[in-house]
Amino acid sequence: MKKWVYNFGAGSAEGDASHKNLLGGKGANLAEMNNIGIPVPPGLTITTEVCNYYYDNTQEYPKELNDQLNLSLKNIEKITGMKFGDSKAPLLLSVRSGARASMPGMMDTVLNLGLNDITVEGLAAESGDDRFAYDSYRRFIQMYGDVVLEIDSLEFEEIIDNQKEIDHITLDTEVSAQSWKIITKKFKDLVKNKTGNDFPQDPIEQLWGSISAVFNSWMNQRAITYRKLNDIPQSWGTAVNVQAMVFGNMGDDCCTGVAFTRNPSTGENNYYGEYLINAQGEDVVAGIRTPQNLTVREKEEQKSDALAMEESIPEIYQELAGIFKKLESHYLDMQDIEFTVQKSKLWILQTRSGKRTTSAAVKIAVEMQKEGLISKEVAIARIDPLGLDQLLHPTLDPKANKEIISRGLPASPGAACGKVVFNSEEAVEMSKNGEEVILVRMETSPEDIHGMHAANGILTSRGGMTSHAAVVARGMGRACVAGAGDILIDHDNNKFSVGDITINSGEIITIDGSLGEVIKGEVSTIMPELSEDFSELMDWADQVRKLNIRSNAETPVDVKTALEFGAEGIGLCRTEHMFFDNERILAVREMIFSDSEKDRRKSLEKIYPMQKNDFVEIFKLMRELPVTIRLLDPPLHEFLPKEEEELQELSDILGKDLSHIRSRSLQLEEQNPMLGHRGCRLGVTFPEIYEMQIRSIFEASMEVTEKMNIEIIPEIMIPLIISDKEFLFFKDIVEATSKSINKEYGKTPKYLLGTMVELPRAALNAESIASHADFFSFGTNDLTQTTLGISRDDCAKFLPDYIEHNILDNDPFISIDVSGVGKLVSNAVQDGRKTNQEIKLGICGEHGGDPKSIEFFHKTGLNYVSCSPYRVPIARLAAAQAKIKNK
Amino acid sequence: MKKWVYNFGAGSAEGDASHKNLLGGKGANLAEMNNIGIPVPPGLTITTEVCNYYYDNTQEYPKELNDQLNLSLKNIEKITGMKFGDSKAPLLLSVRSGARASMPGMMDTVLNLGLNDITVEGLAAESGDDRFAYDSYRRFIQMYGDVVLEIDSLEFEEIIDNQKEIDHITLDTEVSAQSWKIITKKFKDLVKNKTGNDFPQDPIEQLWGSISAVFNSWMNQRAITYRKLNDIPQSWGTAVNVQAMVFGNMGDDCCTGVAFTRNPSTGENNYYGEYLINAQGEDVVAGIRTPQNLTVREKEEQKSDALAMEESIPEIYQELAGIFKKLESHYLDMQDIEFTVQKSKLWILQTRSGKRTTSAAVKIAVEMQKEGLISKEVAIARIDPLGLDQLLHPTLDPKANKEIISRGLPASPGAACGKVVFNSEEAVEMSKNGEEVILVRMETSPEDIHGMHAANGILTSRGGMTSHAAVVARGMGRACVAGAGDILIDHDNNKFSVGDITINSGEIITIDGSLGEVIKGEVSTIMPELSEDFSELMDWADQVRKLNIRSNAETPVDVKTALEFGAEGIGLCRTEHMFFDNERILAVREMIFSDSEKDRRKSLEKIYPMQKNDFVEIFKLMRELPVTIRLLDPPLHEFLPKEEEELQELSDILGKDLSHIRSRSLQLEEQNPMLGHRGCRLGVTFPEIYEMQIRSIFEASMEVTEKMNIEIIPEIMIPLIISDKEFLFFKDIVEATSKSINKEYGKTPKYLLGTMVELPRAALNAESIASHADFFSFGTNDLTQTTLGISRDDCAKFLPDYIEHNILDNDPFISIDVSGVGKLVSNAVQDGRKTNQEIKLGICGEHGGDPKSIEFFHKTGLNYVSCSPYRVPIARLAAAQAKIKNK
Repeated sequence: MKKWVYNFGAGSAEGDASHKNLLGGKGANLAEMNNIGIPVPPGLTITTEVCNYYYDNTQEYPKELNDQLNLSLKNIEKITGMKFGDSKAPLLLSVRSGARASMPGMMDTVLNLGLNDITVEGLAAESGDDRFAYDSYRRFIQMYGDVVLEIDSLEFEEIIDNQKEIDHITLDTEVSAQSWKIITKKFKDLVKNKTGNDFPQDPIEQLWGSISAVFNSWMNQRAITYRKLNDIPQSWGTAVNVQAMVFGNMGDDCCTGVAFTRNPSTGENNYYGEYLINAQGEDVVAGIRTPQNLTVREKEEQKSDALAMEESIPEIYQELAGIFKKLESHYLDMQDIEFTVQKSKLWILQTRSGKRTTSAAVKIAVEMQKEGLISKEVAIARIDPLGLDQLLHPTLDPKANKEIISRGLPASPGAACGKVVFNSEEAVEMSKNGEEVILVRMETSPEDIHGMHAANGILTSRGGMTSHAAVVARGMGRACVAGAGDILIDHDNNKFSVGDITINSGEIITIDGSLGEVIKGEVSTIMPELSEDFSELMDWADQVRKLNIRSNAETPVDVKTALEFGAEGIGLCRTEHMFFDNERILAVREMIFSDSEKDRRKSLEKIYPMQKNDFVEIFKLMRELPVTIRLLDPPLHEFLPKEEEELQELSDILGKDLSHIRSRSLQLEEQNPMLGHRGCRLGVTFPEIYEMQIRSIFEASMEVTEKMNIEIIPEIMIPLIISDKEFLFFKDIVEATSKSINKEYGKTPKYLLGTMVELPRAALNAESIASHADFFSFGTNDLTQTTLGISRDDCAKFLPDYIEHNILDNDPFISIDVSGVGKLVSNAVQDGRKTNQEIKLGICGEHGGDPKSIEFFHKTGLNYVSCSPYRVPIARLAAAQAKIKNK
Repeated sequence: MKKWVYNFGAGSAEGDASHKNLLGGKGANLAEMNNIGIPVPPGLTITTEVCNYYYDNTQEYPKELNDQLNLSLKNIEKITGMKFGDSKAPLLLSVRSGARASMPGMMDTVLNLGLNDITVEGLAAESGDDRFAYDSYRRFIQMYGDVVLEIDSLEFEEIIDNQKEIDHITLDTEVSAQSWKIITKKFKDLVKNKTGNDFPQDPIEQLWGSISAVFNSWMNQRAITYRKLNDIPQSWGTAVNVQAMVFGNMGDDCCTGVAFTRNPSTGENNYYGEYLINAQGEDVVAGIRTPQNLTVREKEEQKSDALAMEESIPEIYQELAGIFKKLESHYLDMQDIEFTVQKSKLWILQTRSGKRTTSAAVKIAVEMQKEGLISKEVAIARIDPLGLDQLLHPTLDPKANKEIISRGLPASPGAACGKVVFNSEEAVEMSKNGEEVILVRMETSPEDIHGMHAANGILTSRGGMTSHAAVVARGMGRACVAGAGDILIDHDNNKFSVGDITINSGEIITIDGSLGEVIKGEVSTIMPELSEDFSELMDWADQVRKLNIRSNAETPVDVKTALEFGAEGIGLCRTEHMFFDNERILAVREMIFSDSEKDRRKSLEKIYPMQKNDFVEIFKLMRELPVTIRLLDPPLHEFLPKEEEELQELSDILGKDLSHIRSRSLQLEEQNPMLGHRGCRLGVTFPEIYEMQIRSIFEASMEVTEKMNIEIIPEIMIPLIISDKEFLFFKDIVEATSKSINKEYGKTPKYLLGTMVELPRAALNAESIASHADFFSFGTNDLTQTTLGISRDDCAKFLPDYIEHNILDNDPFISIDVSGVGKLVSNAVQDGRKTNQEIKLGICGEHGGDPKSIEFFHKTGLNYVSCSPYRVPIARLAAAQAKIKNK
């Protein structure tokens, strides 16, 4: 018989950490903690296989489940000595989701399950606290009502608010036992009213209702969105964990808290966490009450007045600290732990690898390696390469003047600047239009994920370091200042105020997520100093990786940045960008409007010295590192003016009729410029353009070679090749130019000659092309456009629907489409090496900076990837991880 | 030692017909004719390998050539009993080109070689005809001067004209022996004057000069152009034939002629030819004198007064007729023969398979099969499928009024209509602009090939049925009326006149190449009656071929035409053409401007009954033959009005703001519509459109199935698929629609569901897609665009340069690009059959009507090709030939 339910409790469990796929992250860890003697309330885990069964079988359960569940309940009752539904010592349960990957707050949870009109009295008697018992009961009804019965939570809140008004009080903590009883009654009436049925009194019915609610929440919209954003497959499913309740809200000898074994923001090796006295866990996460610090150190750093746990209940704190040590050395990673103290007895509710900022991740990984906990390879594998973006982007210039209008918690590091918006829809809309926005909210909820993703930064007026806003922003790498309590948000008038300062929607503010500052206006930024830990980790990555990392760059600024970030060459130097320079665009246009080769050559003569100087600058910076220069690629009409005035100006300067200019421009227009007269097709029709470029490259390389006494071997790259014959056409031109250079200078320039492989036909003919070429560089942008027949500029209208309907797993312009474009690339690699074993193979599309794609390129056996300068560290790390993963 | 020279003569030869590659067509046939006892003047052939050696070695000859040539000359001297350079009985030679494929008039020829100041006297003495001797000498100097020494032929003509003026005569035949002597002297002065050297007197020097001239002419521009037009590789090279001269111009007991063993225009089994008394061969071909008929029958048909050869020299005619029989039954094909009678002795100078019109080719092939000469397969293989175009296109309506202004020879059949142009450049220019032109010339020359190709028809005022214009026009399938002698062309004023009628350049005329009529203005045309021979041949082809032939059609007219031409199904019924219908375009636009799915469905409801009726019409015509219907494919903006007025009208009708209409139109515009929001991407974003189409197909097929009591199984085709998941998305929709039909009608519609394979990614994922699909139809148009990255609409600016530079062998939109697109197709065929052995595979791109591509598709193992209705017979024939060729 298939096992659908796994038990844990009292120092033993049926599963362990290795059962993550079956039991989910939470379930596997609960089992594992039991096995290593951590005090965990007993419980059971319904496997992820039940979830899949449920969705594969029109939401029905395997028939053995009921018996297995009942058996497991008996086990919990035996361990706790309490009985489910008992009028004296009622066992209360929590029901929580737990997928393979953490999806904080995305799915449903029900607490205090098992309470009904009878057991609530037992709880009151047992705890000796009427107020606590009815508070627990009303919480249960409210949660169950919301999650299982789908009654709007606000309707429950309204009942509470009414009662508080009657009682002339404002805080929940002030509500009396009597009032909670009245509220409980009214809650039950609301349920009857809304559903037509009484609130279920049978604990078993309550349990099944909650289990189904959790499984159903696997497919709610916010969970789907979260999975999409985090690449979590739907097929993983969620487990359900049913566990005996412990209470942090049974009085002042109770508390509940969340802790990290190291600082998740900086990575420092200090315990880090928050707790709330006389509260349930969700009070901490929800960020409604501002919690107290765990340690004195934190308390002082955050200039808090409230007692740290270390001071208030030192023995329990010490027990907790011991558990931290045990868990970290067991899991060999920084842990994120939920705990509850019930009547001075410590319980651990959950442990998992803690989310952290990238800089924290780097620090933790490097330090753990030095502490002997993990190897260098594990340290490398621990860092999400995409997270490095966080470290590489500008922070606020400390010397800049800044008008700080408020302070909050430094919830997610980095600085961000943008127009204020007050809701997520607007954030999404404006960011679509290319605007940078800061999302300002009282607090955020899972419904805000889209908006947070679209925003540059998030500012909340409520909540702590572990509030929803803070956790999600850190995960996304968005700057966040949380709990800036003096900010008053006026939603009706779309503004917020701090004292007498008012900021309207659309005004620009800056936030510093590392310092917790909220600043009026825009503040200038500087590049971050990269930490020593970072450098060390990158060194380790460099030692491991097999792929070389180059960068796409053509301006001196980009070239310098690329070098600073560790680029080992330029994989793509686009020459067309150089043509747009103000000084030469006129000569370029003159060239385009030439009526004969002779006139074209005349205009090219004007461009030539500037073009040569471009290359001199680059060669000087790159010295002997390889530089791959792509000859002119875009269709000529891209260089033409679009506005009437500009056309007129051009007509005046060239001394040609405006109508001539206009009709010539029209003539150059294309139906599908992506597939048009561009790339080396320009070189076939106007070989003189390519000749000028080749000559410039040769003269520049020879000049710098001589001046700096180094050897420069430029790599000339022909774009958009479709066949070997086409390649040979250009090889002839290059060789002829080389010969003519030799005649003039008495020296033959050194060079390599290769081609972009960016059209399917080139990939399909790699064997014949490779026999003549020194290198291939896969242009995966265009190769993706042509292989999938999708124009990158036009796909916004349908690609989202494709992702939505699961037709495509991801945006093929971000991560390489392995079963389409990838096939062409790997076949071309094999075929190319058949005729030319020495051929250098690289890739210079955007995919060169995408970790998933980099792993593919590593496996395919390329020599290098080339990406934008800021992506170089990401690529270095991803290349190392690819090597480690595919040893 | 390598053999570079092959001898023939006196009833034996060193080669035979099988040596065509080595000896060229002419050389191999001269050898063969010797072997079978045909009277051929002795000679030698310098092989095509010498030509290749010559071009591979900076125009030098293999060193053994000289000795071999001298030896062979001795052999000719021995057979003829004459001596090269002898003062008494001088041997005279002809030097002619002869490539593997016939290239009439493209390369150089030198006749009467061996004459000099001494031998001319010998010739005079031997022939007893001073005039003949000096006429021959001056011809030799003129030809040698032109061909070898590159002196403009007109300068020689001027000398002759001057002398004729002095002598007060107009015709060459009137020039006296004395005057030819004077002219000869002046010719030699001209040579000395132009070249600085005396005209070469050494016959050996003359011979080498002429041989080199022939080899050089292999690379002259008109030969290169001809090879390009006729797909003849440069690497084949030409042979050079050196042969003892015989003379048709030694007096009135001499003549020269050209004959076909059957009528090359109609295919009738009658000898057919022309001869000129006392003339050399080139006089016939040049069309300067109008020749006499060979047979009495021809003479009567053409209402000629001149004696036919059959009457004038019946014994020689009988000998000739015997040779015709012998040659035809030897070569098993209709022969094109050149002959000369020297002093009543018949010599055959050349035989080769004769060029013929397509209808003649069909007739000859079918009749020869019936005569037992050739098999059905050979008969099929004899017809150029593309030539069938000639038979399938309209001829003049016999009932139409026509103002015949002139008559000439019916030189190439078919009717053509167009604007009059007087030179080839203009013809090329105007045809580029889409205009139809008739090229009107006194006579044509190889320089006119471009113009003849560009023209719809050719009209000449001089020359016979075997003149340059006639031969080339038949080969090209252009209508031609030749030798319409009463037409006076006034080049200076760009007009021609016949009597008092004047036709200016740009005026429209019609010519009927089958009747020889020249008609003023445009004449209405009708479809040709296809001959019984044609039907019989097509039946044979149908029995042989393996590929099924379908047609691309969607209008009832096209569907009917397709059926008449033998289509076995519709391979591509494009539904978008139906949307452009005047009655429904408004509803389509309304649908496009809908703001919600609900509104869209409302507009679709309006289109739905019309769409259903489209399919009813087609199913009724096609009955149980398969019909593949492609769901909507083009981007929606194609349906929008472009002009301001139309936009305003739409705004009025839809009751929406013009600015709204305009901005919505703008929004729909795309950078690269070919790669944009089109094909099944429309179905992903607006599934309701596809639903409507699918429902229409189902209801139409069920309705016609019931009404006609036949079984209709429509084939629904999804365009632009890239993956199996995408295909399954639509399979779900089709199945759901089928179910809902079943609910309403109580019957489940039958259907096949398949996809276009028109993007590289689909081809690369054929294996997974095929497992869900009933059929693939390769959309080679779009597959070519994406695989090569070439937009069909934009390639005119560079594709000609690609053909010119030999980078591409042919236009990939005409003949399939085997090593790019072809690879994808054949891999997809193999992969698709791996998961679905039963899958039907076809192709519906333009390549479906191209014989070369059809051979490729046959070899690839497709089930069918689908092409435009007029191409169906071509495809049937080409498919049979592919099968025969690849048995």
